[in-house]
Amino acid sequence: MALTLRSALSAVCLALLSGALTADEGMWTFDNLPLKKMLAKYGFAPDKQWLELAQLSAVNFGGGSASFISSNGLCITNHHVGRGSLQRLSTRENDYIKNGFIARSLDEELKVPGMTIRTVMQMENVTDIVNAAIKPNMSAKAAADARQKAFADIAGELGKKTGLEPRQVSLYRGGEYWVYLNKLHSDVRLVAAPETQVGSFGGDPDNFTYPRHDLDFCIFRVYEDDKPYRPSHFLKMPTTPLKAGDLTFVIGNPGRTERQLTYAQMCYNRDYTAPATIASLKARRESILAEAAASASEDDRRRIMASIFGVENSLKANQGYYRGLIDTAAMAKIKAAEDELKAKINADAKLKAEAGDSFARIDESVKMLISVFKDQQVVAGFNGDLASRLAAIVGLITDPPQTSDNPRLAAQQNQARERAIGEFAFDRERETVALAAALERARAELGAKHQFVVSVLGSKLSREVAETAVGGTSLDRAEARKALLDGGKKTLDASKDPLLAIILKVRDIQTRVNKTQSDARAIVDEHAPRIAKARFAVYGKEMYPDATGTLRLTYGAVESYDANGTKIQPFTTFYGLYDRHIGWGGNAANAENGAWTLPEKWLTLKDKLNLETPLNFVHTVDTIGGNSGSPVMNTRGEIVGLLFDGNFEGLPSNYFYDEKLNRSVSVDIRAVLEALNNAYDAGFLVEQMGR
Amino acid sequence: MALTLRSALSAVCLALLSGALTADEGMWTFDNLPLKKMLAKYGFAPDKQWLELAQLSAVNFGGGSASFISSNGLCITNHHVGRGSLQRLSTRENDYIKNGFIARSLDEELKVPGMTIRTVMQMENVTDIVNAAIKPNMSAKAAADARQKAFADIAGELGKKTGLEPRQVSLYRGGEYWVYLNKLHSDVRLVAAPETQVGSFGGDPDNFTYPRHDLDFCIFRVYEDDKPYRPSHFLKMPTTPLKAGDLTFVIGNPGRTERQLTYAQMCYNRDYTAPATIASLKARRESILAEAAASASEDDRRRIMASIFGVENSLKANQGYYRGLIDTAAMAKIKAAEDELKAKINADAKLKAEAGDSFARIDESVKMLISVFKDQQVVAGFNGDLASRLAAIVGLITDPPQTSDNPRLAAQQNQARERAIGEFAFDRERETVALAAALERARAELGAKHQFVVSVLGSKLSREVAETAVGGTSLDRAEARKALLDGGKKTLDASKDPLLAIILKVRDIQTRVNKTQSDARAIVDEHAPRIAKARFAVYGKEMYPDATGTLRLTYGAVESYDANGTKIQPFTTFYGLYDRHIGWGGNAANAENGAWTLPEKWLTLKDKLNLETPLNFVHTVDTIGGNSGSPVMNTRGEIVGLLFDGNFEGLPSNYFYDEKLNRSVSVDIRAVLEALNNAYDAGFLVEQMGR
Repeated sequence: MALTLRSALSAVCLALLSGALTADEGMWTFDNLPLKKMLAKYGFAPDKQWLELAQLSAVNFGGGSASFISSNGLCITNHHVGRGSLQRLSTRENDYIKNGFIARSLDEELKVPGMTIRTVMQMENVTDIVNAAIKPNMSAKAAADARQKAFADIAGELGKKTGLEPRQVSLYRGGEYWVYLNKLHSDVRLVAAPETQVGSFGGDPDNFTYPRHDLDFCIFRVYEDDKPYRPSHFLKMPTTPLKAGDLTFVIGNPGRTERQLTYAQMCYNRDYTAPATIASLKARRESILAEAAASASEDDRRRIMASIFGVENSLKANQGYYRGLIDTAAMAKIKAAEDELKAKINADAKLKAEAGDSFARIDESVKMLISVFKDQQVVAGFNGDLASRLAAIVGLITDPPQTSDNPRLAAQQNQARERAIGEFAFDRERETVALAAALERARAELGAKHQFVVSVLGSKLSREVAETAVGGTSLDRAEARKALLDGGKKTLDASKDPLLAIILKVRDIQTRVNKTQSDARAIVDEHAPRIAKARFAVYGKEMYPDATGTLRLTYGAVESYDANGTKIQPFTTFYGLYDRHIGWGGNAANAENGAWTLPEKWLTLKDKLNLETPLNFVHTVDTIGGNSGSPVMNTRGEIVGLLFDGNFEGLPSNYFYDEKLNRSVSVDIRAVLEALNNAYDAGFLVEQMGR
Repeated sequence: MALTLRSALSAVCLALLSGALTADEGMWTFDNLPLKKMLAKYGFAPDKQWLELAQLSAVNFGGGSASFISSNGLCITNHHVGRGSLQRLSTRENDYIKNGFIARSLDEELKVPGMTIRTVMQMENVTDIVNAAIKPNMSAKAAADARQKAFADIAGELGKKTGLEPRQVSLYRGGEYWVYLNKLHSDVRLVAAPETQVGSFGGDPDNFTYPRHDLDFCIFRVYEDDKPYRPSHFLKMPTTPLKAGDLTFVIGNPGRTERQLTYAQMCYNRDYTAPATIASLKARRESILAEAAASASEDDRRRIMASIFGVENSLKANQGYYRGLIDTAAMAKIKAAEDELKAKINADAKLKAEAGDSFARIDESVKMLISVFKDQQVVAGFNGDLASRLAAIVGLITDPPQTSDNPRLAAQQNQARERAIGEFAFDRERETVALAAALERARAELGAKHQFVVSVLGSKLSREVAETAVGGTSLDRAEARKALLDGGKKTLDASKDPLLAIILKVRDIQTRVNKTQSDARAIVDEHAPRIAKARFAVYGKEMYPDATGTLRLTYGAVESYDANGTKIQPFTTFYGLYDRHIGWGGNAANAENGAWTLPEKWLTLKDKLNLETPLNFVHTVDTIGGNSGSPVMNTRGEIVGLLFDGNFEGLPSNYFYDEKLNRSVSVDIRAVLEALNNAYDAGFLVEQMGR
């Protein structure tokens, strides 16, 4: 069964695949790399030694990606991946976010509290073991439980055996089960970071765009036993300059894609969840703008407006994903591919027996989700300051969370509890407005004859009911809520509080929604793996699994693309950084909250830096959120860049990859070296890098 | 009647208009400037002196725009406006297109053969005189003739009286008639031009785009009596630096817009002419690509491919205009405005009598155009090398052109004649393929029962008929064609040539098409002015006329816009020029025919130039082709830039202006001064500029 690193790497040599996928598409697992395709297109495919270097240099950095780049434990990632650490280390006196940081000796390196990063040492395929746990005639629920237990058991076993942290990895939507075994590093210290205005130049407005001029890097050092860690593998600095057309590889942890959803599931996203997400982000944006317009002081306004950028950024991303779903040509291709697979399944008796029904069953699950979609939206509307706290208390009483060994989970649970019963600034009018809006929406969406609407509203106006409920509640007092929570089920049943009465009825809807959603999920859990297995049977393993936040390799060339009415240049330089700053016509500080301002120091640096140094570049590698900080490697196994973003045009890659449009955006490692040498006077660090 | 410059300028003070149009929209005539609107928005409106300076400094440069910028006749325009002159002056030894040019003394300045440029000295409103020529009960044709004669007569009269060149200018689609009186300058000498790689940096791919880095300028000097001309007015160099948000003015000759077409006419463009134009450009592109693929040598391929850029550029522009037509929200607004105007016309007895019918009549003219649209497309398909020559000969015989005093027109006529009867490389197979394709299209578009199809094709295959016709023709010989043309109508009727027989039948279709189109035009000629007059009556003169290639003023601020997923910076700098060059990763010379290469000299200039100097900027002024080379003026009447392009997003401005998207792109005059001083060692020219 289990496939060690070594055997995974030799299995690679068998996986010589035909070229069914678009060009450079794919976030590949190390056991199933399209080496033949790479070789055919680029005249190069990595060998065992190259791949071992890539895997063992790669680091999972708290959900983002990173890599070892020196024999003494230097570990490089993006500034935006390291940002949380910078925040934790910053004090009133030392604002490392604003001012950046350079440790000029080991003594000055700052330990990041609570930080643990991981390297995948082994990857074991446990599919057969997990599947063996399923006995014929088991119910769907029993099968799911058995599968889950077998998976957890083998993971625990492997963890014990190797002394490594086991991670359960389900690939191909349940087509394969793996255990990845991680080495943990818990002593991680900050070494170097640029100022935010440089490390995040262009800020939120430039996010997802290119040409870009963002020195998005941050360097840490891993320690073991209070000494710099000596990794078995690390990446060296490039010995040949990266050029347009060059082949690159990205190793990292892409978070989530939905490319292997069925066509019906994508249509559900297109017609239901995606528009709802976009509408809710737009509503959030509008309420921020309204709040800002009503704010008393310029300072208040600024503070409120600061929160709009995150919202606009999510909106930009979600509208981008949505563009993919409403791209009728792309969707037609997805449907055609699915129809072909269906036909092949139905043409084979064994496959038909196994998965002949699966697409139809998943269609059914989608219909179930649609049937409760409006209810779910209505429930989500009851989000007043007090209403949401009461809903949380009701949840904690009726469906108490399981206690967990996981300290993070336990902390989260505690936080939620504290929020629900803690003090807050209660605004009766605001609560009434929110409740009336939620009730009105319930009437509009569910219809006047829906049981909830009949029992709560009847023929009354929403505002009237809301006034009575909010006017009559005593649960705005923290002690009353605490008493309710402490009293549990009995107190809840006995309460006559008019607002709580409404929330309990909302809870009834939620319970029904949850049940339906959970039933739908069980169907998908059974049938998505059946489809995945059938796909393996028909096409072999020419497919890569959807992103799952686990280690992947993707490859592609440094290449221009068509956008903005012209051809986009593959590289930018420090020249472009200054162009983008000065181009605001003396107004950079006022434009978009100062996204294109530069630290004073950088204005005087122009003559010290080699401005021709490449700063960012685009390549056809197939990446997504979670890949941030990934090393970009060349064919010699050297690090030539750090991936940090995808382009605007490529956002639909959540659903499909289009080589004409999709580009990943990376920091050129030469820019990092140039800045360390000539902006930060940190040549001593450059000396260590790659050595 | 007549409005002299002086009276036009005082009339301005009466034209204090309300603000019905979008913000900075409008290509305004000098007699009807929205001064009140400017004042309200920007706290500034030009006075009489400012306007006199603007008008008398402005130059019409062979269809483009330019301006005087020194007391000794220096005249600045775009490199791409001066390009034709550079071409005419270039020799095998001196390639001024490639290498640029700097005259280091008056002696070195090069006279451009055949070049005449113009300044508008007076503008006379002759509407009443022209309209007085129309008597009641005249037929449409008689009215048109009378109008034309009266207009020509008064123009001639004014020309004689002033000693200036009269130009007939019809505004508001016939709502007003004006005579503009031009001073001519026929001794124009080249003074300075950058290398094309700098003056047209980014080439065709960057055309219509921004951020841009294009030093698109060219300087001439006007002479009189072999001495530098001393213009009464010229623009001075800026005394305060242009900043983001600053108000700017553009004075020049926008060529053509179609914003005052009726909604039905726009729909006609949307559904017929625009798609046909785009399809024909795509076909042209495809045939170039096919030809290139089949070419024997790399040199041939390059030569063929060079012609693709012009085609792709037209395609980009036409697709941009088309985007406007298929923008349903924008079109709905246009329709709503028209419906409002219709309602107001119908609510007023006098207006109803005058124009109540006019929209319906124009609808009718559109239907007439639609009725012959397919026929016109079919006729245009008969464009084989020989077929097109025979068609020309048939045209010259059956509908001989009127002889003209205009030497340019006469030269054109002669050229057409020479082409028709001159030698050319006849390729029988190629001609056959072209003819067969045209016949096939005729069958497909006109239907098997169309008289032309029945008589020419019957039940035969197109290829068969084409082979017979091209195989049997003797008109591939130049002398045969000359004999045919010389023989005139009689020879034509007697000819038994099988290819000519087809061309004559095509001519029959063309004749019917021409008749219908001309009838449709007569309707528009009568009713567009009626609508224009009704619009004046309803709204006053809050409107500007569609662009007509004549002198206009537009205004707007230097301002960012949203594109490419982010905010676009209002200025670019020389930093950006080098970024865009180096960004091709060592590959600029190979990308898109070297659009982003730089002359060797410029690579070493980086340390001599002040790279912070603003190079290009965008502003909200409303311009279109023909405005190229226009001076950009500030409120002090100084020249701050040279307009040279519009942005990609604003291409629909052929039909409507959208302040959120429309931006004009200009060269910052500071870049011109910096380059003259520090790249071209031409400080002596800078000394003269503005003095």
